[in-house]
Amino acid sequence: MKVTIKDIAKKAGVSPSAVSLVLNNRPCRISQQKKDEIKQIAKELNYTANQIARSLVTKQTKTLGLIIPDIENIFFSSLAKHIEIECRKHGYALIILHSDNNDQHDLELLDLLVSRSVEGIFLIPGSEASKYKEALINKLKQIPIPYIMLDRVYPEFSCDKAWFDNEYGAYLAVKHMLEKGHRKIGCIVSTNFYNGQLRLNGYIRALKEYHIPIKQNYIVKGDYKKESGYFAGKKLMQEDLTAIFVTNDMMALGVINSIYEQNKQIPNDYSIVSYDNTIYPYIFGIELTSVKQDVKKLSSSAFELLYKKITGSVGTEKEICLQPELIVRNSVKALNH
Amino acid sequence: MKVTIKDIAKKAGVSPSAVSLVLNNRPCRISQQKKDEIKQIAKELNYTANQIARSLVTKQTKTLGLIIPDIENIFFSSLAKHIEIECRKHGYALIILHSDNNDQHDLELLDLLVSRSVEGIFLIPGSEASKYKEALINKLKQIPIPYIMLDRVYPEFSCDKAWFDNEYGAYLAVKHMLEKGHRKIGCIVSTNFYNGQLRLNGYIRALKEYHIPIKQNYIVKGDYKKESGYFAGKKLMQEDLTAIFVTNDMMALGVINSIYEQNKQIPNDYSIVSYDNTIYPYIFGIELTSVKQDVKKLSSSAFELLYKKITGSVGTEKEICLQPELIVRNSVKALNH
Repeated sequence: MKVTIKDIAKKAGVSPSAVSLVLNNRPCRISQQKKDEIKQIAKELNYTANQIARSLVTKQTKTLGLIIPDIENIFFSSLAKHIEIECRKHGYALIILHSDNNDQHDLELLDLLVSRSVEGIFLIPGSEASKYKEALINKLKQIPIPYIMLDRVYPEFSCDKAWFDNEYGAYLAVKHMLEKGHRKIGCIVSTNFYNGQLRLNGYIRALKEYHIPIKQNYIVKGDYKKESGYFAGKKLMQEDLTAIFVTNDMMALGVINSIYEQNKQIPNDYSIVSYDNTIYPYIFGIELTSVKQDVKKLSSSAFELLYKKITGSVGTEKEICLQPELIVRNSVKALNH
Repeated sequence: MKVTIKDIAKKAGVSPSAVSLVLNNRPCRISQQKKDEIKQIAKELNYTANQIARSLVTKQTKTLGLIIPDIENIFFSSLAKHIEIECRKHGYALIILHSDNNDQHDLELLDLLVSRSVEGIFLIPGSEASKYKEALINKLKQIPIPYIMLDRVYPEFSCDKAWFDNEYGAYLAVKHMLEKGHRKIGCIVSTNFYNGQLRLNGYIRALKEYHIPIKQNYIVKGDYKKESGYFAGKKLMQEDLTAIFVTNDMMALGVINSIYEQNKQIPNDYSIVSYDNTIYPYIFGIELTSVKQDVKKLSSSAFELLYKKITGSVGTEKEICLQPELIVRNSVKALNH
């Protein structure tokens, strides 16, 4: 049986409304002694305040919402974990909603969070179709609570954002290969995603800096999944290459598979740099150099930004762009020219 | 500006309470034409019903809650994903809460879900301290909504449960090694966890069936994390062994590392069977035989059970125990005696 405010009132010999005032710490003409007694009784009876009823009064739910596109993706699940820890540290609960990378779901889940009166929202949008962007822009215009866009951010949205500099991360990766003497560098990239386009820009910037012409047959499209990496790897191995830049870890797994299948070695036959730095603990025999995006840093920056918005201390729009870092291991061979 | 029911009422030329009745599909003396008009206006104005206010009336939130201990663990994140998909398929939203494997957090998160009026709860408890069990049993007694315990279940709790048969999974794994001729089989096990104890029981059952004495120095304790597998592997390699049963995938990664470090081969020097079957896509050069727990099956069984409880069609307590399956690859060498 659920304990109600009436049970507490009966036991304390006061009215239910008196109990409500005391438990919500609102001003009332009740002695401190009686207040303590009411709180003690509530505790003994294991009273759980009905947050729904209460939040209608206080407007404070101390709860934030996070929408993530794929909870199975190691990067996103790690990000969710650290945002939750950050929220908890500051007295907030975090409701995590999974959109399964579906555009329409994002819209529904935003409605759900608003109707559940969270105080603020972290949004990592699901997909990148241009049609979808318009629907999302319209939806976000109607959101009556603070929100920020996380990781997958788009210039079309004028809102607060926190993300990693994808162009710079890719630039670092390719520059490292160039410094090791590579000139024939392939690239596997998911240009359907905005961050994929940016990573491709970074690849191009590094090559241009070294005055190396961009060859279209060195650039193969993937979809951030392992299988697409495998086929892209097979395709690239038909070209005259010494190195491959793979723009995420899952596709890197596929590329490694395709290289092994041809009885080739890393880095002896092909040098590789990947993006995300999440699979290193799982793979053996390859010291994979990869671009690291520090999720803890993104989590704390994102929380801070949203918190400032909730408490009203961010006036104008704010964008936080974090720098990724290249973790150099041993998957790029030094070439002598 | 948030659109309210008053805005719709004004535009439709009816009272706010009429709008409320129509949008909640409740019986009222309003013509079908007017009803359609009101719904159309609500749609045009992008009206989002205040779920908080509405759920006080209807008591239906069409939302379920899931508490998971570690969102970064591949098994749990995959389970969360498939439960979410299952819920959505049946018209429910899923709120995912992360306990960070902390006993106290479980209690708080249960309160949060109750106060948010979810209609039912999936609970995967965080830790296994005996003191904690009592607190959780007490808390669950007070929960006024249906809940089921998932994956990590304990006999001390009398409630509906859905889980995999851990004892049987381990029995399958060790029996496979025995059938391949192995007699000196080590075991790395996390007995601090109840499912670890069960997996140890399965190991013992298989050996007993083959009349092989249990040697305590063949059984090394781990904590389900990679590092503990590494140290357990180092310890076991000092024994006279031909095979190792590792009771989860993360520890298997550690064991593989420790074997490679000694320049030993799998399965030539050591045969290995693991539990979970989650790391196969990430590792190269090892065809790892592992016990698979079908998360999709668990997700749909769990949803069905909770749904039956919500709709009142489960009378007595119910336990669903699913059978795991051994995925045989090539990490166990056949021995000739």
